[in-house]
Amino acid sequence: MNAYDELLARLKDIDLVGQIGGLLGWDQEVLMPPKAAALRAEQLSWISKTGHEKLTEARIGELLEILEQKDDLDEIQRGNIRLARDSYDKATKLPTDFVAEMAMHKSKSQISWTRARAENDFSIFRDDLAKMVEMSRKKADYLGYDDVRYDALLDLYESGLTVSRVDPLFAGLRENVAPLVKKVMQSGTKPDMSWVHNNTWSKEGQEGLSQSISEAIGFDFNAGRRDASTHPFCGGPNPDDVRWTTRYDEKDPFGSLYGSMHETGHGLYEQGRPRHLDFQPTGSANGLGIHESQSRLWENQIGRSREFCEWALPIWKEYFPEQMKGVSAEDLWRSVNFVEPSLIRVEADEATYNLHIMIRYEIEKKLISGEIEVDDLPDVWDDMYDEFLGIRSPNRTLGVLQDIHWSFGAFGYFPTYTLGNLYSAQLLTAARKELPNHDEQIRKGEFTPLLEWMRKNVHSRGSIIEPSELIKEATGDEPSPDDFVKYLQDKIEFLYEL
Amino acid sequence: MNAYDELLARLKDIDLVGQIGGLLGWDQEVLMPPKAAALRAEQLSWISKTGHEKLTEARIGELLEILEQKDDLDEIQRGNIRLARDSYDKATKLPTDFVAEMAMHKSKSQISWTRARAENDFSIFRDDLAKMVEMSRKKADYLGYDDVRYDALLDLYESGLTVSRVDPLFAGLRENVAPLVKKVMQSGTKPDMSWVHNNTWSKEGQEGLSQSISEAIGFDFNAGRRDASTHPFCGGPNPDDVRWTTRYDEKDPFGSLYGSMHETGHGLYEQGRPRHLDFQPTGSANGLGIHESQSRLWENQIGRSREFCEWALPIWKEYFPEQMKGVSAEDLWRSVNFVEPSLIRVEADEATYNLHIMIRYEIEKKLISGEIEVDDLPDVWDDMYDEFLGIRSPNRTLGVLQDIHWSFGAFGYFPTYTLGNLYSAQLLTAARKELPNHDEQIRKGEFTPLLEWMRKNVHSRGSIIEPSELIKEATGDEPSPDDFVKYLQDKIEFLYEL
Repeated sequence: MNAYDELLARLKDIDLVGQIGGLLGWDQEVLMPPKAAALRAEQLSWISKTGHEKLTEARIGELLEILEQKDDLDEIQRGNIRLARDSYDKATKLPTDFVAEMAMHKSKSQISWTRARAENDFSIFRDDLAKMVEMSRKKADYLGYDDVRYDALLDLYESGLTVSRVDPLFAGLRENVAPLVKKVMQSGTKPDMSWVHNNTWSKEGQEGLSQSISEAIGFDFNAGRRDASTHPFCGGPNPDDVRWTTRYDEKDPFGSLYGSMHETGHGLYEQGRPRHLDFQPTGSANGLGIHESQSRLWENQIGRSREFCEWALPIWKEYFPEQMKGVSAEDLWRSVNFVEPSLIRVEADEATYNLHIMIRYEIEKKLISGEIEVDDLPDVWDDMYDEFLGIRSPNRTLGVLQDIHWSFGAFGYFPTYTLGNLYSAQLLTAARKELPNHDEQIRKGEFTPLLEWMRKNVHSRGSIIEPSELIKEATGDEPSPDDFVKYLQDKIEFLYEL
Repeated sequence: MNAYDELLARLKDIDLVGQIGGLLGWDQEVLMPPKAAALRAEQLSWISKTGHEKLTEARIGELLEILEQKDDLDEIQRGNIRLARDSYDKATKLPTDFVAEMAMHKSKSQISWTRARAENDFSIFRDDLAKMVEMSRKKADYLGYDDVRYDALLDLYESGLTVSRVDPLFAGLRENVAPLVKKVMQSGTKPDMSWVHNNTWSKEGQEGLSQSISEAIGFDFNAGRRDASTHPFCGGPNPDDVRWTTRYDEKDPFGSLYGSMHETGHGLYEQGRPRHLDFQPTGSANGLGIHESQSRLWENQIGRSREFCEWALPIWKEYFPEQMKGVSAEDLWRSVNFVEPSLIRVEADEATYNLHIMIRYEIEKKLISGEIEVDDLPDVWDDMYDEFLGIRSPNRTLGVLQDIHWSFGAFGYFPTYTLGNLYSAQLLTAARKELPNHDEQIRKGEFTPLLEWMRKNVHSRGSIIEPSELIKEATGDEPSPDDFVKYLQDKIEFLYEL
């Protein structure tokens, strides 16, 4: 066997460990019985340890050194070697026992977060979170960084991301979006939300609506599932088995539907991976920013467009004939674009969403540097919401306990959400140039042309080139906030007559 | 680390691989999307290969040789060493590639069985089954045997089981049970089944009934789940996560309920395993015969008793108030003890059940020896049903395709079902001696005393001693058909006034 084939065989082995871990994780979130938590943590720790051991075998380092000398490699081979090198370097910096301990703690800590959230009691989560922060700092130190400790964690979710790159990005958005939100608030204009709030929306109806729309967009339910979980996510082991979840609130039908469209977007990306690259790093989705661009595309750019609302109205009426009596497509469109500062990130509107991310980003920066500690979190959280959004959480469940991310130590993850918003606007702007009838197609529920464009320009490209290169290749431009800002200004100014 | 602790650490590692495999297998049967089959087969093959590699490491052989010299070991240590030796010897006889190939083929073959069964077309399953038979013969040859090839496979499910031991056992039952069934048929007596057949039994009602009764018996749903699957089974990764399934037929409420009680019995055994022996072979359930004794106990010995029917009647009426109007406990009792030759093993009554097993046993003997081949199966199956039960299947789905077992190569498994029937009668006979108010307790729904007896005398003993020793320890007698025959004769003669 030559060095490249040997490397691929080893990477396949590692990929299978990851697939199995993906199923265990999904099961833990969705349907595992409560008493199974401790032994599931043992299983996940075993998976994590096994994957880490296989990835850090010295032979992989040797193979990479051989292969990095070669100059006759094609694009895919170069991509696999680059990605394997990145994983190998990151993994060899972390001791095996540390990885196993962290995996074990993730499981434990997710359980206590779930309980704390249900019981609205931060103290239940406090100790596990403190240990998780301590371990994350230690992890950053193991990984190393040039400037600030938090950079080492940012780099895990999008290669090369640093505080010095992210800071101006948020500043740019703040300059344009914050004033926009202020103008909306000052205008006093509000869509009529009474038809939403004065009705009850059955779980069964919401399930039917989510399922229909996910199917219509193109999610393949023979290669995936829809379930319910506390924190919606898209997971599962591989492109043939993509499992997304949503949650239902009988007072609010938008949360489940737009959550479903969001996770459907993630799921479509997974199902669209290049299958000739199965088990290879280049066959994977290309990092969290691009992933989020696909979820945001369907949730917001498409799902909150006037054309989509026109198409979706009859489906709404099918599942909720009583509740939708007298509701027009324009009413629906205005309601799903209601801009108002709110407490819950995943339910925030497009305009305020990035402020939620900014708060988390600022908190994480300070928490990882040691400027603040876990006991400060609940109040710091509430104070920042006061400052940036003008509202204060009445309890911990709607405040500092709302997100699952910190419970599994995903510090540095949140900023990729904002990258996703920017990329989604850039990609749709580029796609429109090749799809002149885009608006009309959406109005007719013809989602295939746009999905095919994404399949060709994004999904099928896997991780062959780096995320920023992929955006450049697909759109012709460097990553930038301009398309997003323009899209948002156009829509909001029209809707709110600013 | 001393040799014993090193062995236990290695066995824990192997046990975790098995736990993970247990979850993957459950998921495949219960909720995996159809297109995921091929990659799930890769995952299961990886699990199987990894477990096999770990079990066959030369170091385990070295440790066993060291430990087998020691004479100061306690009962548990001796048990762990004996069981590890048995697994090690069996595993080292099978080449790693063969094990991986077999695991891969199991997954594939289960899929084609499911399709073949749904489409009533044996040809869909034919090639995969033929390969499975071929691999099973090869497996027997790798494992070795003294007398006939099939012995090597029987031994996998109950240590020491051989054709020469099983043949007389079935002969003994045949002598007593076959004439009993004949007498029932000749008597012409039949319970009134019209209340069953003239009603529709909603899936929801059956789910509620199954759930209530499983909870009442003592299954802990915080450490397990109930789901639906084509072929009911009890699986899952470990005693904190025991997952059983049933299936629903709106024309027949008994299938799901008694199936649920059967799987609940398996589940209770798993949940009752000795937890201080987690990850150790002695902490596992003690083979398939004992396992089946626990399922049969609750399904038949308890579930089809007059006292149980008296207790359960109000619960039936709660879920099916219309359908159960005018039905008495005695009507219920007579209906659930309806003796009549039928096509489906899992729905067979207690009296004819072992004839179903006998047919499978005879077929397997001939199939593994090469006396018949896969293409002969559909007709051989139908002819034997004609001969032993006097009925012929109108199609393949109700005939040769009804059981999942052969699809995963479990030749030699079926006879343990009959062992389970015999053991269950022996265990209840022994328990009654210490529980003088047993009948009265069942009539009141007080299942705890019997469950506690099983916990103490069976469950908590894990696999510390061999199955036949466990039966001797718990009942005072060697394995024997006498208690079962007496139990059946007493009940059937009374019910059918023979």
